[in-house]
Amino acid sequence: MTATWPDLPADHPYGTEHLPYGVFSTGAAPDRRSLGIRIGDHVLDLGAAATAAGTEWADTVSGGSLDPLLAAGRATWSAVRAWARQALTDPASRGAVEPHLHPVDGITLHLPFRVADYVDFYASEHHATNVGRIFRPDGDALTPNWKHLPIGYHGRSSTVVVSGTDIVRPTGQRKGPNDPAPVFGPSVKLDIEAEVGFVVGGATEVGSRVGVDEAADHLFGVALFNDWSARDIQAWEYVPLGPFLGKSFASSIAAWITPLEALSAARVPLPGQDPTPLDYLRGSEGSAFGLDLDLEVRLNGTLVSRPPYRTMYWSPAQMLAHLTVNGAALSDGDLFASGTVSGTDPASRGSLLELTWNGTEPITLEDGSTRSFLEDGDTVTISASAPGPDGSRIGLGEVSGTIRPAV
Amino acid sequence: MTATWPDLPADHPYGTEHLPYGVFSTGAAPDRRSLGIRIGDHVLDLGAAATAAGTEWADTVSGGSLDPLLAAGRATWSAVRAWARQALTDPASRGAVEPHLHPVDGITLHLPFRVADYVDFYASEHHATNVGRIFRPDGDALTPNWKHLPIGYHGRSSTVVVSGTDIVRPTGQRKGPNDPAPVFGPSVKLDIEAEVGFVVGGATEVGSRVGVDEAADHLFGVALFNDWSARDIQAWEYVPLGPFLGKSFASSIAAWITPLEALSAARVPLPGQDPTPLDYLRGSEGSAFGLDLDLEVRLNGTLVSRPPYRTMYWSPAQMLAHLTVNGAALSDGDLFASGTVSGTDPASRGSLLELTWNGTEPITLEDGSTRSFLEDGDTVTISASAPGPDGSRIGLGEVSGTIRPAV
Repeated sequence: MTATWPDLPADHPYGTEHLPYGVFSTGAAPDRRSLGIRIGDHVLDLGAAATAAGTEWADTVSGGSLDPLLAAGRATWSAVRAWARQALTDPASRGAVEPHLHPVDGITLHLPFRVADYVDFYASEHHATNVGRIFRPDGDALTPNWKHLPIGYHGRSSTVVVSGTDIVRPTGQRKGPNDPAPVFGPSVKLDIEAEVGFVVGGATEVGSRVGVDEAADHLFGVALFNDWSARDIQAWEYVPLGPFLGKSFASSIAAWITPLEALSAARVPLPGQDPTPLDYLRGSEGSAFGLDLDLEVRLNGTLVSRPPYRTMYWSPAQMLAHLTVNGAALSDGDLFASGTVSGTDPASRGSLLELTWNGTEPITLEDGSTRSFLEDGDTVTISASAPGPDGSRIGLGEVSGTIRPAV
Repeated sequence: MTATWPDLPADHPYGTEHLPYGVFSTGAAPDRRSLGIRIGDHVLDLGAAATAAGTEWADTVSGGSLDPLLAAGRATWSAVRAWARQALTDPASRGAVEPHLHPVDGITLHLPFRVADYVDFYASEHHATNVGRIFRPDGDALTPNWKHLPIGYHGRSSTVVVSGTDIVRPTGQRKGPNDPAPVFGPSVKLDIEAEVGFVVGGATEVGSRVGVDEAADHLFGVALFNDWSARDIQAWEYVPLGPFLGKSFASSIAAWITPLEALSAARVPLPGQDPTPLDYLRGSEGSAFGLDLDLEVRLNGTLVSRPPYRTMYWSPAQMLAHLTVNGAALSDGDLFASGTVSGTDPASRGSLLELTWNGTEPITLEDGSTRSFLEDGDTVTISASAPGPDGSRIGLGEVSGTIRPAV
């Protein structure tokens, strides 16, 4: 560690192999937003440091948002990361960089980019199977299309909020199968979905496609994601056009965006796809990668699930190839999420729907209380770690939210 | 007519009662975009005229986009329209305004606003009934929720294109019920959906609601909309999470946005709702209004359908109230569309799916050719007219697109 500073242990979640991006303000200048890179318990004001260093891309990172960097494309993403790693590990640069470091304790984090189109996928076979068993106990658990394409749908981009934002319990219509008519009120089945989000840059034109082999050039980074879900609203509304108000009230994203490059040691093969997907969903060896992320879900501090991302059926590269195969354009700031991450072990399910089997098997928290679905005041926090180079670990930025009562 | 200029007949589609907004550039300055108001066969450069007149809101209309005006809210919308009507009808203002008029023949029209979130509804009972009969001939035509809430889903905002943009035939997976496995290729069931779009302004915060009575304050304007649909891709993908790639390749919107205020004489009661919807979908008398718009759909010049918007089951005000009842925020530039407009008469159906009964009853065009679905090179144009004050007519801006072969 002698060659690096700050002096961080190899297993620090925000060590020199991680370097995630976030947008922050300080107490001294609450109205001024800066793009930062997290290192240990500090954040580097990237625009200020890059401007002082006279880098070519200093303007791209000086606008207080990730947006211009997303637009700049893969070559710039690599150049910025390479510069930051050098600046934050070479003792010779310490004097120049240190004035631009702020303790994370004193900062406020903001949504780091303007979300363009948001798509949510359904890429966990175990999650989709559980949902099928719960809602269609007499039918096939998976729909006939499930293993042929990564099922997805568009969500509401304007209600993607940064970790730490309170979530107001949504209100709406619900009707159980035995209710004579729909009733109106706050959701009584408010749930989480532990997911991984992918932040897209390098916009494309309408009519073009991004193949599996090109996907990594458009995958800027990764962030934990909680797709809050009102199961009762969703169940009544979703046939035939899919989820709408049961999802659109809020989705939370981590404040720290981990560059895809930081996860090179976390790339793993997919668990296996049978039947073999169509050509446009295949790529050269390794391009349809999985990610070895260990998620943890905590409800009011109690660890309630450990979803393993490595068990996901579809690769993020396949999701992006599918999303664009019809000629749909990508915008800088597009966001897509994996869908709920659930493993085979019941303790690795990424939603309360599955953990409590639609409320029939409540879970018990450390304080002795039980939960079928979320109660007002509950706080849900999703964290994750991944292998870094040389045995190090990378800790993704957590995504957290607390339920406020319905208005 | 002596008090007005330009001298336009009362039935001119762009008379002084209409005054729709669009964004244009001229051959003389192709890179400079201006917000304009159409009057007759001219467009008023609104920013230039308002700046010359020294109006308070001149900056709001000078940015070459509708976006700042959408953000300004209802009071400014009314002020701008009142000023423009005065300026374009009072002979005393002719000398000041005339230098800022451009012939529409020489301009290029652009997408007039940045589309934030885009939602497509399914608000025609006759359309939903036809679709149900085609795809579920042995079941109930309408799903149990249909008359209790305006069904909708989020679409892809980045692929909303302005009228006149060519549409590339999308490629993707399809699998008929008797096919052993999915096949890949250009869509063979490319269709239209004749719809009416609603442009939203006056952004709201996450957690708030817009009731039926407040909806008109957020409904800036109306534009014809074609929700191009690949029926074969859609049929294979849409269970259980709704339409995705069958829709997301492109949706076309008219270049001219008609202010809601211009349609005051076109407001009509809804055809009737039974059962009575829940309280949050009701408002004071007249707030859940319908619109008396006569649509016309032309395929390569042949009039193939006359969908009557007045037959729609759900009001745009109810759609907006439903969209926000769960606390979802509205953004300036949100766009929602009605879903296919179909009447009871077979000649008033707003999609080829219905007009040809899923391809089983092809239609014949004036050149003697027949169509089940769209062929490469086909041009579809949707137009509409509405009653204006004192027996005048308002002609909405048409939405048109031509199919290009798959890439």
